[in-house]
Amino acid sequence: MENVKVGLWGFGAMGRGMAKMLLTKKGLDIVAVCDLDPNKVGKSIFEILDVDKKDRKEVLVESDYKKAFTEKCADVVLLATDSFVKNAFPKIEYLLKQKVNVISTAEEMAYPQSQSPEIAKQIDKLAKENGVSILGTGINPGFVLDLLVLALTGTCEKVDSIKAVRVNDLSPFGKAVMEEQGVGTTKKVFEKGVKDGTIAGHVGFPESIRMITDGIGWKLDKIEQTREAIMSNVYRKSEYAEVQAGNVAGCRQCGYGYVDGEIKIVMEHPQQILPNLEGIKTGDYITIKGVPNINLQINPEIPGGIGTISMCVNSIPHIINAKPGLKTMLDIPIPRAIMGDIRDMIEK
Amino acid sequence: MENVKVGLWGFGAMGRGMAKMLLTKKGLDIVAVCDLDPNKVGKSIFEILDVDKKDRKEVLVESDYKKAFTEKCADVVLLATDSFVKNAFPKIEYLLKQKVNVISTAEEMAYPQSQSPEIAKQIDKLAKENGVSILGTGINPGFVLDLLVLALTGTCEKVDSIKAVRVNDLSPFGKAVMEEQGVGTTKKVFEKGVKDGTIAGHVGFPESIRMITDGIGWKLDKIEQTREAIMSNVYRKSEYAEVQAGNVAGCRQCGYGYVDGEIKIVMEHPQQILPNLEGIKTGDYITIKGVPNINLQINPEIPGGIGTISMCVNSIPHIINAKPGLKTMLDIPIPRAIMGDIRDMIEK
Repeated sequence: MENVKVGLWGFGAMGRGMAKMLLTKKGLDIVAVCDLDPNKVGKSIFEILDVDKKDRKEVLVESDYKKAFTEKCADVVLLATDSFVKNAFPKIEYLLKQKVNVISTAEEMAYPQSQSPEIAKQIDKLAKENGVSILGTGINPGFVLDLLVLALTGTCEKVDSIKAVRVNDLSPFGKAVMEEQGVGTTKKVFEKGVKDGTIAGHVGFPESIRMITDGIGWKLDKIEQTREAIMSNVYRKSEYAEVQAGNVAGCRQCGYGYVDGEIKIVMEHPQQILPNLEGIKTGDYITIKGVPNINLQINPEIPGGIGTISMCVNSIPHIINAKPGLKTMLDIPIPRAIMGDIRDMIEK
Repeated sequence: MENVKVGLWGFGAMGRGMAKMLLTKKGLDIVAVCDLDPNKVGKSIFEILDVDKKDRKEVLVESDYKKAFTEKCADVVLLATDSFVKNAFPKIEYLLKQKVNVISTAEEMAYPQSQSPEIAKQIDKLAKENGVSILGTGINPGFVLDLLVLALTGTCEKVDSIKAVRVNDLSPFGKAVMEEQGVGTTKKVFEKGVKDGTIAGHVGFPESIRMITDGIGWKLDKIEQTREAIMSNVYRKSEYAEVQAGNVAGCRQCGYGYVDGEIKIVMEHPQQILPNLEGIKTGDYITIKGVPNINLQINPEIPGGIGTISMCVNSIPHIINAKPGLKTMLDIPIPRAIMGDIRDMIEK
């Protein structure tokens, strides 16, 4: 069997991370990389990644997606360019028409049925017409606050309510993330930012909540979200941010899923720098009330960057094996680490 | 769409538990129940279960499996009669020839490829010839020490080693389990029992370990298992057992999976009564060393009985949807709770 051919659209932190991971795996080749950054265009990906090329074929970063991705050029393209379905759609449409399978890191693509049902239908139709499949995944949405919750419910006779909490430390992230989460600002500036959308918080609650309700068969009435400032009682300083005591250490985002007029799903995702300075333990926490009750914790939390990179790469065999169409984490077998030859996981 | 038709072969604790759960779900009917117990044969299942029949069709317990299960009598039969592949095989063969999908609670059926590869091939062939599919599942093997481990590895770039531990309290179980685990005996009697096979311990490590290695692509060299007495330092007394200080409170079973000559997978399953009397917290614990490291705990452990019942019932739509053949938890989408109409989960 030939090596699996993988393309990458977007060579930022996620794209480069996926490329590095791919280069450690057996039975696949990176065949094309597309990115617009003038510092990367035309350069060898091995040079950019600082990885020994060995006897691999050279791959140069291409700025023109039409040159990078031609018909059937790859078995799958990993699309790491956007967070929102609307922005990712033209790229998805182009790729599906080239008859390549697609895995997207766009948070909203983890369950586009939630906020963009019409585009989701269009994507499903396009994929089927072209005989390929498409999946959105990542650590969150894609795993911690949805797939892992759903997996636990598989051990339940019934579920009454679900609470899922992800407490992380933003310190390793860069300046853009600090600004999106309002780290270091005053309460006033934070509240203005939430109103005008410059403090965006986490993208993914509507996707995670809807994936769960559709997955277990609850009829979702509505979703509500709140974003509030995490006020720091102490001085906090990390590489990219500084927070005075009394100012904002990050954003506590909550999501609520209503079923039959009641809140049945609660999600909390407080994101801040250095929560340990106030005795807060980072981690992923899932509590299911039902038969039985389930109480899970993962400490520390599964890291966001590595987790998203891994979920995308580890989904490659499953999206290649899938029937044509728009797939979600509800449709494919559980992605798992790939420690052998990836070709052994591809169905003939 | 017609209701999903479910049969039950075996009406012991598991079979009755599945029946009770099924009767709380929408869009399905129990159409046949087979059991040999003279106290049950000929009786209404609703009477045995002490559940209001309402407007459901009567179902009487049938002792003759040929009368209970005729060709295409059900969409799926839940087979809860055995622990071992060899003993379950004739029943499986009969059911597949009747062209019904099968879900088995037999621990070894969770991954029959591990210890009975020839029978596994035969089952796969029979299922394909008859256009149906078959799955073995349960809480363990089936979830805690295999599928949940695999799900976590999906967030990993690489995995170096895995440790999975399930610490439970045997107190709710009956006399047969106490004897199988050696609860209340002396160390000498316990060791003799392990040698002559009367103290059987947990069935499932070879299945869980092999499911993990096959799932992530490690080549498994060999599996080793140990069973040792858990000596009690204190007096313990539960409904079905009594343990003097200095005697055996249960069986600590360990399993080791060797890959490339090294132990890469460690499983521990100490089963005893009242571990809390010596300060031991029951729970499910998974530690993955790799990139990233992952450290999960579920406290208390997901209960074995309810968990197995739920995993089997919640797998129904997925085994009906599956392509013909022998399936494992590696092949089907993640089973999840069924809180709506089960027919909504069946693909047309």
